[in-house]
Amino acid sequence: MALQQMFAGRTERMKASEIRELLKLLDQPGITSFAGGIPDPDLFPADAFTDAFAQALSPKTQSVALQYSVSEGYLPLRKWIAGQMAKIDVPCDPENILITSGSQQALDYLGKLFLSPQDTALVGWPTYMGALGAFNPYEPVYGQLSVNGNRSAEDHAAQAKADGGRVKFAYLSADFANPTGETVDQRGRESVLELAEALDCAVIEDAAYQALRYDGDPVPSILALELARKGDLEACRTIYCGSFSKTLSPGLRVGWVVAAKPVISQLVLMKQAADLHSATINQMAICTVAESIFDSHVQTVRNVYSERRDCMLAALEMHMPEGVSWTKPQGGMFVWLTLPAHMDGAELLDVALDTEKVAFVPGKAFFADGSVANSLRLSFSCASPEMIQDGIRRLGRVIRATM
Amino acid sequence: MALQQMFAGRTERMKASEIRELLKLLDQPGITSFAGGIPDPDLFPADAFTDAFAQALSPKTQSVALQYSVSEGYLPLRKWIAGQMAKIDVPCDPENILITSGSQQALDYLGKLFLSPQDTALVGWPTYMGALGAFNPYEPVYGQLSVNGNRSAEDHAAQAKADGGRVKFAYLSADFANPTGETVDQRGRESVLELAEALDCAVIEDAAYQALRYDGDPVPSILALELARKGDLEACRTIYCGSFSKTLSPGLRVGWVVAAKPVISQLVLMKQAADLHSATINQMAICTVAESIFDSHVQTVRNVYSERRDCMLAALEMHMPEGVSWTKPQGGMFVWLTLPAHMDGAELLDVALDTEKVAFVPGKAFFADGSVANSLRLSFSCASPEMIQDGIRRLGRVIRATM
Repeated sequence: MALQQMFAGRTERMKASEIRELLKLLDQPGITSFAGGIPDPDLFPADAFTDAFAQALSPKTQSVALQYSVSEGYLPLRKWIAGQMAKIDVPCDPENILITSGSQQALDYLGKLFLSPQDTALVGWPTYMGALGAFNPYEPVYGQLSVNGNRSAEDHAAQAKADGGRVKFAYLSADFANPTGETVDQRGRESVLELAEALDCAVIEDAAYQALRYDGDPVPSILALELARKGDLEACRTIYCGSFSKTLSPGLRVGWVVAAKPVISQLVLMKQAADLHSATINQMAICTVAESIFDSHVQTVRNVYSERRDCMLAALEMHMPEGVSWTKPQGGMFVWLTLPAHMDGAELLDVALDTEKVAFVPGKAFFADGSVANSLRLSFSCASPEMIQDGIRRLGRVIRATM
Repeated sequence: MALQQMFAGRTERMKASEIRELLKLLDQPGITSFAGGIPDPDLFPADAFTDAFAQALSPKTQSVALQYSVSEGYLPLRKWIAGQMAKIDVPCDPENILITSGSQQALDYLGKLFLSPQDTALVGWPTYMGALGAFNPYEPVYGQLSVNGNRSAEDHAAQAKADGGRVKFAYLSADFANPTGETVDQRGRESVLELAEALDCAVIEDAAYQALRYDGDPVPSILALELARKGDLEACRTIYCGSFSKTLSPGLRVGWVVAAKPVISQLVLMKQAADLHSATINQMAICTVAESIFDSHVQTVRNVYSERRDCMLAALEMHMPEGVSWTKPQGGMFVWLTLPAHMDGAELLDVALDTEKVAFVPGKAFFADGSVANSLRLSFSCASPEMIQDGIRRLGRVIRATM
């Protein structure tokens, strides 16, 4: 018998991320790609990292930088993060923070922490496909999370029970979400908190894009709103996942979780068993760079992406035919485009690549049930204004021709 | 209801590693500690890493070093590893290799890949407690793996069936294992392969210490033996887990898995969902350092540890009372000491710390069922010859006094 016949049942739900497979295909020369959704590498603070790695490897700290360290994460970095969290009205201790290998790892651990097979995870429709990928091995049922309170907690609970488990958490990215770019307003966030309260479940707040706001007033984070209500982080059910991937560098794989201490303690045990700790030297380098240039660097990133977003929205306005609509994100990296109901984003991609050499991600994979096909995700983070103008013009042409 | 009441059942088996909690306690000034089991930080090739990180961050490659990368791992590093594997008679392609965040992560992924609740994992008695920690969340039953063929496959299979699952793998570290320091001879390795063949299960070969041989002839790896029998890596059931933690640096968290391609493909999907990829820059730095100094550096490490091992064995010979026995490792970092049957390693530790300020790890936690208490693990990797002579003398005194 071949080894793969001995794989556990959970592996049946592990599939190649369509995006990641697609990216290998799309990042070809000659293609104008809005598919990526990764940071512009020209914006990485490489000089600051060069200094920071050299500093970590200086005689005074090299034996720390290269050695095993604690599963909780590098203490000075957790202190810096605690300071940042205080700035967004979530004062906390380093003991409320776990450093993870990107916020992707936090999603995996949270799936492992909460989900038994047949438990329900409430997610957006669409939602971040990497979250679906992280949760899938724990064999949940997905329920549709709405942020306008139009489905009662009783209803959700009854459905989850019928599906063989209970609602364990609501997962959402409230700021400039991947894939839609949309932001949930304060009323919507309060409504998610009320739903979670009624369901007695956790809220996983994916804040990966939160720092990338280009205009409009910041909305308090879900964790900040809950903390304001309850006055004690230890009483909060929201678990906040942050990341340096969209601000400083994704290649270093450093993110963090903020939550009540019993949750963090359990995640620390999980990390200890799963990979001991995130790379020591990377945590030190991120800490040094964050301490010295975080705010100014993020402002630079915002300026560049904001211009690209403006350019993409203007180009869409100019080139999209009647019947096509799109989101107007106040931050992040994405615009979500909705085609007429009869059209299919994946079929459009084939034609767009073929006739116009322009690429994007078809929307279907962002739906837990793959039920909606007439949408697509456009990323503006890595494209110059010229590429955007020309690419969107060509995209408009192929949509028009296919309608 | 508190959030922790919503944790999945699997979390009940996640406990703090006794070693890691102990280490926080034992690494105090004034204590002579043989507890650690970590590499000597004075041996880290810090200068080589300084150059390698600077090189990775040079203008030519900085945008690669700091960016997202593929889940499989950095190709030049996989090529270098393929070259090393060929030297130990396991020629393979980069597609047979996945880069993991330390071999600890490989153990977590392999537990996730194979184990459904109630499946059986065969492990040594004692075994590496970090493997038990990695497998525990997947809720296996542990069976006792013997390397002398004294329990039949039928017997193992019947027991596993009675326990509600089947035997999914045999896990072992065949070279200078943590905690015993012992090596499984070629006959023992063949016997494990035969058992796995009869049980139609996988073999997980943890090769974390394999490069640290100080004397005696190398024994072919289990994977090499299986490959020699079958002639085709794709037909092999052995999954080899390597690590740079004991040779170059543990803090960078870089290890690897070598296996048949369908196994690697599934592990790649798992890694994609769990943390996307191991840190890009660390893989680049490890690759540069490995390419330039791996062999000479490992020889340096061997020379130092070998002297410490000699020193510890001589001191044990001199100071241990009648009735105490210990292993004579040909490599690695550990000596395993067996006390008279009525003694308890944990109780001895209390007295040893109190009266002699000497520390070690009690053996109980290395047994899946915690059934054996009269043993302890001594590590010589971080102790100078003077510390070893003095510490073992004091350990002998406290054992004598407690007998």
